Amino acid sequence: MTSKHIVLEEYIRTIPDWPRKGILFRDITPLLADPKAMAIAVEAIAGCFENEHIDYVAAVEARGFIFGSVVAQKLGAGFVPIRKKGKLPFKTQEVSYDLEYGTDTLEVHCDAMAGGAKVLMVDDLLATGGTMSAACELIDKIGGEVVGIAFLIELRALCGRDRLAGYKVESVISY
Amino acid sequence: MTSKHIVLEEYIRTIPDWPRKGILFRDITPLLADPKAMAIAVEAIAGCFENEHIDYVAAVEARGFIFGSVVAQKLGAGFVPIRKKGKLPFKTQEVSYDLEYGTDTLEVHCDAMAGGAKVLMVDDLLATGGTMSAACELIDKIGGEVVGIAFLIELRALCGRDRLAGYKVESVISY
Repeated sequence: MTSKHIVLEEYIRTIPDWPRKGILFRDITPLLADPKAMAIAVEAIAGCFENEHIDYVAAVEARGFIFGSVVAQKLGAGFVPIRKKGKLPFKTQEVSYDLEYGTDTLEVHCDAMAGGAKVLMVDDLLATGGTMSAACELIDKIGGEVVGIAFLIELRALCGRDRLAGYKVESVISY
Repeated sequence: MTSKHIVLEEYIRTIPDWPRKGILFRDITPLLADPKAMAIAVEAIAGCFENEHIDYVAAVEARGFIFGSVVAQKLGAGFVPIRKKGKLPFKTQEVSYDLEYGTDTLEVHCDAMAGGAKVLMVDDLLATGGTMSAACELIDKIGGEVVGIAFLIELRALCGRDRLAGYKVESVISY
């Protein structure tokens, strides 16, 4: 079977009522476990921006690191980890954002990139867009320019794109 | 400058007294930010096991995901994420291990691999080896066979290798 016959959706497992009743969770672990499916997913993510100049790929821990680092290598770009508060050892810039209950804080190293660097944001899943919106704000704070945002999966019903208005947003799989 | 002239150690930043007084923290973010240095690091990690048959690369969140996923693609292997308790949506196997204060629990999906699958464990740093030892136990519990463990950095003074006795352990940079 050639790679062209791989249908990525078949590698996403839907788990009902997780983490809460009524949620259909899209589990990407079967895709990660298959190197050919993973390669196609990475190519699809990177392909959306292959005609743009990208200096860095930035991604939020933890699942964002899985695709972020591979896409960065694919594009010949550096990788910039965005982490939860207290995990990065050097001087950081931070941004807080609202969760359903309470708030969370993301950090990035202040010296992660030179001013004006072109940045592609990568994550596995676009839901409400709250985390990604905060991550873009963080890149802006350290002087980077977000030239695009790429997701493996987009949950359209949650309208995450609306929170990312003004950015070029691409997703490979939509539900 | 060809890639042969890249000295990986020059991309590791040492931060004194982080996260606590007396600790020299080895910060890999400058290496991640440089795609050529990252490529060489990945080649060095994967190269230690290129003559072994590897079905899966397994890695512990969050930093382990950065190298684990790229090394998996490099070796043509699947990627298996090992996560902190409560993050994986399907049926899991778990193992708890001691931290300096308290304990922590790692989980992996029970169906992450077929029995007898050959697994390479990857992480960025070998310190005391406690987390990696627990991760290997977890792979064993789901029927995988750990054929090797690869680190970017090894802190020799902490004798982490001793806790991983019986495994083939490789590291690219030693302090």
